[in-house]
Amino acid sequence: MELPRSPLAPAAFPDLPRVAGARFATAAAGIKYRGRDDVMLALCDPGTEVAGVFTRSSTRAAPVLDCQAKIAGPAAGPVAIVVNAGNANAFTGHHGQTTVDAVVAMAARTTGADPARVFTASTGVIGEPLPADRITDVLEELAGALSDGALPAAAGAIRTTDTFPKAATRSVEIGGTAVTIAGIAKGSGMVAPDMATMLAYVFTDAVLPHGAGQPLLARLADRTFNCITVDGDTSTSDTLMLAATGASGVDVAGDAAFEAALEDVLRDLAQQVVRDGEGATKFIEIAVTGATSDADARTIGLSIANSPLVKTAIAGEDANWGRVVMAIGKSGAPADRDRIAIRFGDVLVAEKGWVAPGYREADGAAEVARQEVRIGVDLGLGDGAATVWTCDLTHGYISINADYRS
Amino acid sequence: MELPRSPLAPAAFPDLPRVAGARFATAAAGIKYRGRDDVMLALCDPGTEVAGVFTRSSTRAAPVLDCQAKIAGPAAGPVAIVVNAGNANAFTGHHGQTTVDAVVAMAARTTGADPARVFTASTGVIGEPLPADRITDVLEELAGALSDGALPAAAGAIRTTDTFPKAATRSVEIGGTAVTIAGIAKGSGMVAPDMATMLAYVFTDAVLPHGAGQPLLARLADRTFNCITVDGDTSTSDTLMLAATGASGVDVAGDAAFEAALEDVLRDLAQQVVRDGEGATKFIEIAVTGATSDADARTIGLSIANSPLVKTAIAGEDANWGRVVMAIGKSGAPADRDRIAIRFGDVLVAEKGWVAPGYREADGAAEVARQEVRIGVDLGLGDGAATVWTCDLTHGYISINADYRS
Repeated sequence: MELPRSPLAPAAFPDLPRVAGARFATAAAGIKYRGRDDVMLALCDPGTEVAGVFTRSSTRAAPVLDCQAKIAGPAAGPVAIVVNAGNANAFTGHHGQTTVDAVVAMAARTTGADPARVFTASTGVIGEPLPADRITDVLEELAGALSDGALPAAAGAIRTTDTFPKAATRSVEIGGTAVTIAGIAKGSGMVAPDMATMLAYVFTDAVLPHGAGQPLLARLADRTFNCITVDGDTSTSDTLMLAATGASGVDVAGDAAFEAALEDVLRDLAQQVVRDGEGATKFIEIAVTGATSDADARTIGLSIANSPLVKTAIAGEDANWGRVVMAIGKSGAPADRDRIAIRFGDVLVAEKGWVAPGYREADGAAEVARQEVRIGVDLGLGDGAATVWTCDLTHGYISINADYRS
Repeated sequence: MELPRSPLAPAAFPDLPRVAGARFATAAAGIKYRGRDDVMLALCDPGTEVAGVFTRSSTRAAPVLDCQAKIAGPAAGPVAIVVNAGNANAFTGHHGQTTVDAVVAMAARTTGADPARVFTASTGVIGEPLPADRITDVLEELAGALSDGALPAAAGAIRTTDTFPKAATRSVEIGGTAVTIAGIAKGSGMVAPDMATMLAYVFTDAVLPHGAGQPLLARLADRTFNCITVDGDTSTSDTLMLAATGASGVDVAGDAAFEAALEDVLRDLAQQVVRDGEGATKFIEIAVTGATSDADARTIGLSIANSPLVKTAIAGEDANWGRVVMAIGKSGAPADRDRIAIRFGDVLVAEKGWVAPGYREADGAAEVARQEVRIGVDLGLGDGAATVWTCDLTHGYISINADYRS
């Protein structure tokens, strides 16, 4: 099934810069797809600091378990990342770890990385054995073809049902030296916190001291990838990794400009996953303010974002704010009916427990008729705030998921 | 929009018996619908014991707040219940309570019930003012038309998007005397625990001592209405009430046969709500065993039942057990990949962390091709068990909810 490009896709794939110290290669291993690359290898120079945030599913895939066991390990020698599309190697019993071991061993042999510094990820069908030799057979070719210009190809190789490849980049000057950040992601369904995307890899030539990457990535993931949802279904394979090669020589530990740029890249990638949400025709931003805490604001935002009734109303361009009220109410987070204000775009729809005086249905309808819909909820209780992103729920989602085995 | 009768509807409306001590009347108040009754009045004899379980939404409708304030009140004089369809009187500000007060006052005047024993419910559009006079104008007519044979008409009058009226009945002989239970319900979307249905009223001529109804109803609701979901969206109006008139003279406090019969009626009504799930083409029973507790079993069952990816797979008759694995994993309840067993019907699909030896795709596909699909999950961890019921997610759900303002 070839899906048409999402109407919410960015106009163009970004012009990705080279990230010094990081090289990439892709190959067609024929795991599931034919006539396209489906495996990528990334190799980062010795000294690279890595960090990772992974799905909290109790039925995590074998590669996730393997990565989690290694992520906090010692930093010595190069870092290799191997990703395949088409098979998730999830719920494949002990065979799952055997496959991971084989891929890790061969990647270590062909790249010179310590097996403890080889990270793998698999995405696609759950419950079918992943034949390790399909991947190990191409690793020598991949190791010989590594190039610092192949990150765009890597973005293409990790796709499954994605209708467009996803990448984002920022550059920030720190102490007179440019630091580069570039990342790729894939994901379009089975997308919900925690974690929200299926796979994302971000590379930078910044210097991050050993141990500094993990808390930074976890904090920024909470504001980006953990604020998106397509269908509330959390994958068994979700992985977000950051690799800082240090090639720029610029130490960015604690640097606010770097952190802002990295957050921009993560948010950009996360939003692209939503923009490729299965069947999506509208991109929806839900900004919650006035909650009792940031966490409560996110709970309410995600309750709205995951509500099938809200998502179908937006799909039908129905300014049905009653369903927003319902989703606030069911969230479990504190809310006081008589203090809630709801906006569609800049239009005040409801306040003080009722429809706003002067609200005209046509004004709300015009807001939800847009391709980019903004919903604002102020709870009037405190200073907690969060913004989450989702897409509408359409016939396209049903068509894709009632037929496609993911 | 006139929807076709659900393919999952019972073959026929049950032959409802009279419940001594309870009378009913319906009228067309023109609140939203034309050419059909949309208000019902129930009047139960003095001494009737009432109990109620209500939505936990923080944006509860005005009638729910009013009922909750009254439900544990003293038992004296008759009990009146007034229900309208077409407008939920939810998120209608202080106007909401004013409408409730007017309806309660007029119902008390026309029936002789104490206002503290008049319970109302409203279901339909959220956020639009409910004109009290539409209802108060018909209450005198209703009070004059009360009949112990009008419960079937009441089942029809409380419908909104329901494609069939819902009722269930059981009779149980206790100490040589027959005790009758008969109930009605409405609901087809915005259905999830807690509470799961929108409105349900159960009447019995049993004697329940004052205060005995509430714990009984709460316990049984947890095993019935709180085990169903259509879309995970919890309504602002959900109400389940039990009225025991005592006319049979049989005290049923602590009687196991009565409790079993009442549970049967509640489960029957709850399952009928699922069978009328918006767009449903398949009825799905999910039985979870071997969990660390009954509560964990229900959490896992509802995680599967609310998963859009599981529901669309069943709609597409795809035996996609990987999505069941995903939904177990995301639930947050304890699970050990290598102990999970999954069955479709009686077919063992997966066990010990992988596909079961000898499992044939065709066998699983035959199970999910049925109109009544059974999914079994054994976690292999403990004695916790729960069974939940849901329906599939189809193009019909999208069509109904992208167009209809509920």
